[in-house]
Amino acid sequence: MAFNPLFGQSIHYGADYNPEQWLHMPEILKDDLRMMPEAHMNIMSLGMFSWAALEKEEGVFDFSWLDRVLDNLNERGIKVFLSTPSGARPAWLSEKYPEVLRVNEKRQRALHGGRQNHCMTSPVYREKVRIIDTKLAERYAHHPAVIAWHLSNEYGGYCHCPLCQARFREYLKERYGSLDNLNQQWWNTFWSHAYTSWEQIESPSPIGENAVHALSIDWQRFTSHNALDFCKMERDTVKAFNPDLPVTANFMEFFRDYDYFEWAKELDFISWDSYPQWHVFKDSEYVAAYTAMNHDLMRSLKGGQPFVLMESTPSATNWRPLSTLKRPGMHTLASLQAVAHGADSVQIFQWRKSRGSSEKFHGAAVDHVGHLNTRVGREVIDLGAKLEKLAPIAGSEMQAEVALILDTQNRWALEDSQGPRNQGMDYLGVCLDFYTPFWRRGINVDVIDETCDLSKYKVVVAPMTYMLRGDYAERVEKFVREGGTYVSSFWSGIVNDTDLCFLGGFPGPLRKVMGIWEEEIDSLDDDYEVRVKTLEGLPFFDEDSYHAGFLCGLVHCEGSEALAFYDGEFYQGMPVLTHNHYGEGHSYYVAARMDKKFMEGLVGRLEYECGLKRALTTHLPKGVTAHERVNGDDHFVFIGNYGEHGKNIKLHAQYVDMFSGDTVTGICRLPPFSARVLKRIN
Amino acid sequence: MAFNPLFGQSIHYGADYNPEQWLHMPEILKDDLRMMPEAHMNIMSLGMFSWAALEKEEGVFDFSWLDRVLDNLNERGIKVFLSTPSGARPAWLSEKYPEVLRVNEKRQRALHGGRQNHCMTSPVYREKVRIIDTKLAERYAHHPAVIAWHLSNEYGGYCHCPLCQARFREYLKERYGSLDNLNQQWWNTFWSHAYTSWEQIESPSPIGENAVHALSIDWQRFTSHNALDFCKMERDTVKAFNPDLPVTANFMEFFRDYDYFEWAKELDFISWDSYPQWHVFKDSEYVAAYTAMNHDLMRSLKGGQPFVLMESTPSATNWRPLSTLKRPGMHTLASLQAVAHGADSVQIFQWRKSRGSSEKFHGAAVDHVGHLNTRVGREVIDLGAKLEKLAPIAGSEMQAEVALILDTQNRWALEDSQGPRNQGMDYLGVCLDFYTPFWRRGINVDVIDETCDLSKYKVVVAPMTYMLRGDYAERVEKFVREGGTYVSSFWSGIVNDTDLCFLGGFPGPLRKVMGIWEEEIDSLDDDYEVRVKTLEGLPFFDEDSYHAGFLCGLVHCEGSEALAFYDGEFYQGMPVLTHNHYGEGHSYYVAARMDKKFMEGLVGRLEYECGLKRALTTHLPKGVTAHERVNGDDHFVFIGNYGEHGKNIKLHAQYVDMFSGDTVTGICRLPPFSARVLKRIN
Amino acid sequence: MAFNPLFGQSIHYGADYNPEQWLHMPEILKDDLRMMPEAHMNIMSLGMFSWAALEKEEGVFDFSWLDRVLDNLNERGIKVFLSTPSGARPAWLSEKYPEVLRVNEKRQRALHGGRQNHCMTSPVYREKVRIIDTKLAERYAHHPAVIAWHLSNEYGGYCHCPLCQARFREYLKERYGSLDNLNQQWWNTFWSHAYTSWEQIESPSPIGENAVHALSIDWQRFTSHNALDFCKMERDTVKAFNPDLPVTANFMEFFRDYDYFEWAKELDFISWDSYPQWHVFKDSEYVAAYTAMNHDLMRSLKGGQPFVLMESTPSATNWRPLSTLKRPGMHTLASLQAVAHGADSVQIFQWRKSRGSSEKFHGAAVDHVGHLNTRVGREVIDLGAKLEKLAPIAGSEMQAEVALILDTQNRWALEDSQGPRNQGMDYLGVCLDFYTPFWRRGINVDVIDETCDLSKYKVVVAPMTYMLRGDYAERVEKFVREGGTYVSSFWSGIVNDTDLCFLGGFPGPLRKVMGIWEEEIDSLDDDYEVRVKTLEGLPFFDEDSYHAGFLCGLVHCEGSEALAFYDGEFYQGMPVLTHNHYGEGHSYYVAARMDKKFMEGLVGRLEYECGLKRALTTHLPKGVTAHERVNGDDHFVFIGNYGEHGKNIKLHAQYVDMFSGDTVTGICRLPPFSARVLKRIN
Repeated sequence: MAFNPLFGQSIHYGADYNPEQWLHMPEILKDDLRMMPEAHMNIMSLGMFSWAALEKEEGVFDFSWLDRVLDNLNERGIKVFLSTPSGARPAWLSEKYPEVLRVNEKRQRALHGGRQNHCMTSPVYREKVRIIDTKLAERYAHHPAVIAWHLSNEYGGYCHCPLCQARFREYLKERYGSLDNLNQQWWNTFWSHAYTSWEQIESPSPIGENAVHALSIDWQRFTSHNALDFCKMERDTVKAFNPDLPVTANFMEFFRDYDYFEWAKELDFISWDSYPQWHVFKDSEYVAAYTAMNHDLMRSLKGGQPFVLMESTPSATNWRPLSTLKRPGMHTLASLQAVAHGADSVQIFQWRKSRGSSEKFHGAAVDHVGHLNTRVGREVIDLGAKLEKLAPIAGSEMQAEVALILDTQNRWALEDSQGPRNQGMDYLGVCLDFYTPFWRRGINVDVIDETCDLSKYKVVVAPMTYMLRGDYAERVEKFVREGGTYVSSFWSGIVNDTDLCFLGGFPGPLRKVMGIWEEEIDSLDDDYEVRVKTLEGLPFFDEDSYHAGFLCGLVHCEGSEALAFYDGEFYQGMPVLTHNHYGEGHSYYVAARMDKKFMEGLVGRLEYECGLKRALTTHLPKGVTAHERVNGDDHFVFIGNYGEHGKNIKLHAQYVDMFSGDTVTGICRLPPFSARVLKRIN
Repeated sequence: MAFNPLFGQSIHYGADYNPEQWLHMPEILKDDLRMMPEAHMNIMSLGMFSWAALEKEEGVFDFSWLDRVLDNLNERGIKVFLSTPSGARPAWLSEKYPEVLRVNEKRQRALHGGRQNHCMTSPVYREKVRIIDTKLAERYAHHPAVIAWHLSNEYGGYCHCPLCQARFREYLKERYGSLDNLNQQWWNTFWSHAYTSWEQIESPSPIGENAVHALSIDWQRFTSHNALDFCKMERDTVKAFNPDLPVTANFMEFFRDYDYFEWAKELDFISWDSYPQWHVFKDSEYVAAYTAMNHDLMRSLKGGQPFVLMESTPSATNWRPLSTLKRPGMHTLASLQAVAHGADSVQIFQWRKSRGSSEKFHGAAVDHVGHLNTRVGREVIDLGAKLEKLAPIAGSEMQAEVALILDTQNRWALEDSQGPRNQGMDYLGVCLDFYTPFWRRGINVDVIDETCDLSKYKVVVAPMTYMLRGDYAERVEKFVREGGTYVSSFWSGIVNDTDLCFLGGFPGPLRKVMGIWEEEIDSLDDDYEVRVKTLEGLPFFDEDSYHAGFLCGLVHCEGSEALAFYDGEFYQGMPVLTHNHYGEGHSYYVAARMDKKFMEGLVGRLEYECGLKRALTTHLPKGVTAHERVNGDDHFVFIGNYGEHGKNIKLHAQYVDMFSGDTVTGICRLPPFSARVLKRIN
Repeated sequence: MAFNPLFGQSIHYGADYNPEQWLHMPEILKDDLRMMPEAHMNIMSLGMFSWAALEKEEGVFDFSWLDRVLDNLNERGIKVFLSTPSGARPAWLSEKYPEVLRVNEKRQRALHGGRQNHCMTSPVYREKVRIIDTKLAERYAHHPAVIAWHLSNEYGGYCHCPLCQARFREYLKERYGSLDNLNQQWWNTFWSHAYTSWEQIESPSPIGENAVHALSIDWQRFTSHNALDFCKMERDTVKAFNPDLPVTANFMEFFRDYDYFEWAKELDFISWDSYPQWHVFKDSEYVAAYTAMNHDLMRSLKGGQPFVLMESTPSATNWRPLSTLKRPGMHTLASLQAVAHGADSVQIFQWRKSRGSSEKFHGAAVDHVGHLNTRVGREVIDLGAKLEKLAPIAGSEMQAEVALILDTQNRWALEDSQGPRNQGMDYLGVCLDFYTPFWRRGINVDVIDETCDLSKYKVVVAPMTYMLRGDYAERVEKFVREGGTYVSSFWSGIVNDTDLCFLGGFPGPLRKVMGIWEEEIDSLDDDYEVRVKTLEGLPFFDEDSYHAGFLCGLVHCEGSEALAFYDGEFYQGMPVLTHNHYGEGHSYYVAARMDKKFMEGLVGRLEYECGLKRALTTHLPKGVTAHERVNGDDHFVFIGNYGEHGKNIKLHAQYVDMFSGDTVTGICRLPPFSARVLKRIN
């Protein structure tokens, strides 16, 4: 794998640094430079919110303070992710050019305030960003401290202004060619919705059109495309001064606004901001699996290349309903979980708590007390020391034989469409149902979308693939024909790219591969379950019965074999799990949302049938997981205990503990909320 | 009764048909024509959403496709309800004439989109609708397939635009004559709210006036009146070409927006769209009673004339939080319930599922799979076969000796007024409390409003008649004086037509008839109950105690006799149920919302005392009901089992089963979710 | 204490009177004059909503009806609080001058309607109010019936119109001098939020800036200041005609909009509208303590001067979700509670129920039935008779040795700031936790804010003093140094006046006085608790263990002594209650929100340690409280039973019952929901 030159030397460790807040208190800045090395930090993310400090009036620039900060950091060997400041614009810009202010879905233009809320179409905004980006790049693209560009901050959201409407119409013209074609693809005959001029098309709105699903999906596609176009403008602006300096943009948790697989193609490396709700949700294993799935997605966005954990908190956030403190050990465990899943950098937000304004109570390395001799500060230091010892892991791979399809465009379509369950389709939850048993067993999983190559996997798991995009169905067919194992679920194969239903029986073009016809789907309330029985003596399924709920597909086998059946409701006896041989491969269809034990049984069967690799072959108690990164012949196992009680596991091989250097064999102890990193030596 | 000539031959059976969606797939249209007779369908509802397909540009018409569809249907003996397309306008109309777009209560004008969202005052909209309606009527008013006009689709909603404000003021001028009179009737002295010019009056708004209840009520009256005026314009337009073709407009479930009793006068027959939440609410008996009450309302709107069930779903809807499938049998049972209560036509929405856009997952006869050989398709066919056998029932009456007052204007006033229970007055729920025991016993009930004739009933039940409109109190007094039995409840007789309280003691002008004074009313939280005791040994009341809750009136007997009493709270010993002799008749006052057993006791007493007829004299187990339609000397009994378990009932007479032709006597079996129709033969 | 001449003669008893609603029914007005003395009423509040009746068109005045009403009242010896009518303006004013209509936070201008919704900046509105106020004062400032002015009605709310924005900027200029200073005090460097022109500053908005907390706090300060400026304009207008006539403005329950301590300085006496949710919240003791705390705040606003209970309901309100009736006795008990805590007047809203419009179902003395012979009417009369007997109490003091800090500006800052618990900081609830044990014991408490003098108290209790305003910290330090006892809690000493965090360790400038450092704070979900243990054998703390929750501060003792400790979570063993000697005084820090028994223990210790006085030394059973007013040598004890069961207490001295005149000694009986007033005679 052609990894980015950024990675491979050591694990980067650092924080968001906002020195412009403290320019009037120079002793603070001096303290910072003293304490950063104490915390073993070697990189800072700088400049994200500096626009107003760099360009106080339109066209009047002052880089002197930033020069000093960069030089000071450089002198101490601290590297920098340098941000473009487009995420939060100065007030003078909004005041002079109101077109930069977003218009919401109710068509009301925003007042100045907040952040990440500019119109990404606005020519003025693009020009003003281009100018400040140019100034920054001119000056710092070759600065020895700067090792990458961090474009803007958390690109996101929508603007419905007239400029965006016009651009949306252009996008649609290009996509559909003619209005007749668009009307047909969107099924606009219904409710007399045919357009007769492009000008009639408006983005979806609660006070306008909100029930033409193809319009909604295309609007999502356009906004993702348009924001990416803005991002590319920023990228090209800074790259013009040093094409070798890599760029990233910090991504967010299972972000719904944009299609990150499209975005990933335009960036040199991936970074993301991870704020799991540890301890707020009592079930830490759930939080851990959910977060692992997100890390796996981030790693998979660029085909396995290491990524940067760009933001995290060493303690509480300040923006959730509850700011429960991270328990001792949890920050280290969570940071090492990121590394286990492919991160080569751990960054926290932020280095020092602001004194005022909105985020002053967000966790940081340095609290308002002003030193590192705090519970959190000591953990920050301890983590730094540990990460230094993980340098050998830098640049290593996480190899996966299993892929999970988690497709953002499918999510848009699935969740927007009025259908079996408007009270919530829970796409992420259903994906997590399928992901968790792999994660618990320590089987690595890539998280990809429908456009990705399937051929390199043994198993592809595709829950609720309501929308089959482009040639995906053909590639699935080829994948199975050539020996792959494909697992799908209820409510799959329903519509094409423009949300038109497949005619002739669901799951549409996958009907043959799956060997089934899903005639109907029943929707059950959250507290309602249907009993399920498997074939007598079915291996890996040891329970007397299981439970289905949420959505229950009513499926007929067409060549496939039924392995489990409903044992209740009027569809008693109909299949819940089918297995089909197709070409050299297999397929499974899970017709209903099943309980955990059933999913464990299914993954047990897949592991056995497909010979899937695990990080550790030993039994892992509840709450403990193990994942492996590989560097050539070196195998590193990350073991995490997400429970509040200590656990032991029994190792079947010999290892070196990366932190202590001790040899580890036999019983391996795991205190509560702790992680160990072991290198295999035999 | 002078029934509409439309009815009396056979039970119509059909669906909404939207062929314009499939014009580019002619094989689909061919399949449709083949399958409709297979499903025993004999009528289609056509043209509802066809405006954009008929008038693609302003003034450019194309009826060729509709000609073909109508001729094809006619050739196969399929009749048509032909719609005017005003319910969903083409985009070019909104684009060119923004005045047609509604303005919401916050005074924001809508963007184009959705449906049934035009301004009904707009002269432009009225004119454009008049033109397309004229074109349709010119061409099809004498087409042999067309047997009735279906005006627009589900008229509803409000517009607050300046044109509507002006029309509202005209309406008020006519109603009140002078501002002084209006100010006094609305009690505008309070909060300094007197108007000194008509221009100061604005419709209620969350950003303006929202606490002058008389204004709110008159705004409701005006919008109902104004929409009806629009409807009459459509009616007169189409009738001009064939005065004999009857018209309807499809009504909705206990619709709050408009006063359907006013509307019914202007239409030739009633039709409505019924989507009960079978299986979503676990208590099917509740859903059945609620739906029966609505059917009874629809039948009563035109004095008992048969009505058309214009829309229903053979399986799930797509627009509810949960789309639970109709269990086997339920579609047939629900359809026959409509017929039992007076429907002479069963229509489903829609014939074939759309391929795309908002309603593609709404239940239909033909699913995306494209044929009728599905669970739902087979049930559609089976129902068709059954309805054919019910031809003898067509045009028959449902005779009622009991009337329930369910008055929409009372509902507006009751629910808007800030008073004892702003967290919800549950008018429909309280009405259903009184209705259900009659329904369970198979006693037919008309559901009327305060303007209707009372003299033909033995019993009139009037729960929470907060507002006594016009001469209603006088007519009640006359009804009782002449021998009728009048049953009322807490929070009755409080205000007049303009929401002015009756002075001198509640229930105002009914104080004498009821023989009581309600001094106060206590409001209890949902989980709080007060025990109630009846007079020792009171017939029909066999429980040791009962429970009151919700609202508890504190009543003094003034000549009436107390039959039950509070047994708790500071009003212990005060009456809960009073009985009064007045003239030749009786009255009962139920001072609190009582539990089911109490209501059963009360209705048991009424049945006995007033000698009310039941469809079957036998005991009906829980979940089973029986209702009777009568055609001259022929008596037809519809028996429905709404439970998920089979039930038996014991017949006391001999019958013929209308579906099998078998003679039925003694034990009559009822599978789960099933209906039987029996004709009495002795 | 220099009391207002208004007080000291007798207890005023009366109601809001709105005769203008009944001018067309003169017999009603006659009945009123007859019944008021029957109810023992001696004062009416008049004119609040009379603007439209006094000035029907702009500049056209008619005072004739008001002349008559005032003369009629005067003839019967009934006094009047005369209102200025600015709380509800005539429709002609909104129509002609739209600038008087408020603009909401989304920048939408209101339509006419409602009340108390004018722009307080608008020069037109100020002028129109000045004119009508002048007319009233000219005519009535020396009328013998009028004993005070009641300015407007329930001043409240915000306006975001351009006029208010401009005035807000002026206010900020004055406060901060320069933009540089403002930017620094508001910490605007963060998120690039620095302003470069005053015009860029806009009030907070959901569609604009909403995360700059200092902006939000200053906006609150400005709106309080601006509304007070309006109020002062009204005051000065009416005072110009008779400087001796005192003025008030009716305040509201723990009102968040404005800073009443600022307002109190500008008014001659305090009045407020009290609508406790008796019986709606099942725990009457909770409602009673909550209401008592509010009465204590009102009394403390002007340093202990008696206040007026300006509004209350003799039965239900009409504007709450549920209008549960006041149980027999409760109206009397609640009214006497107000007197116990310092009220010298009891007023109800309103004398007679309106016949129509929004408040027609609000409790009143005279119901729609038209006479006083109702349950409520009889209680109104009975209360009147009792209040007459309390004349000796008029003008007496309530002496407090304890002060509770409940600071509105702190509340703004605390609740707006994004921090440990965005799901709710429950400032009032935490204050009530500290207040209730004093109240239960009958220890009088003043409720003051941070600007008030502390030196006169033995104990100052200051929960969650997140913001330390001005020189408060210095005054606390002095207070303790000189012998006072200061009790504070978690999340105190965090920010200064502009929401900038104290650097160097919390509780900031109070760190020395408290002898602690609060390093972190943990936020727990509502259903989660941590066990707490005290030092073995700690007096007043008899339980084996206690419970902490909500927020748990992690505190280090720095010279203080820990008395109680967490017994769970990772902070097991850290202090929960600390005690510090400082100078001549003490301080206590309660690090977490503690259960009731713990708070009882703490207050028990304070009572003993500081020798605090109680109204009665006897044991008070749950639900019963006693409070004392003192008039020179006369001691009056108000004993209230807030429970639904009768209770007895044992008196340790001899008393006279103020209502019966009987001597009371030994056992004193208290029926459910009852109050007794006893005068000590030995």
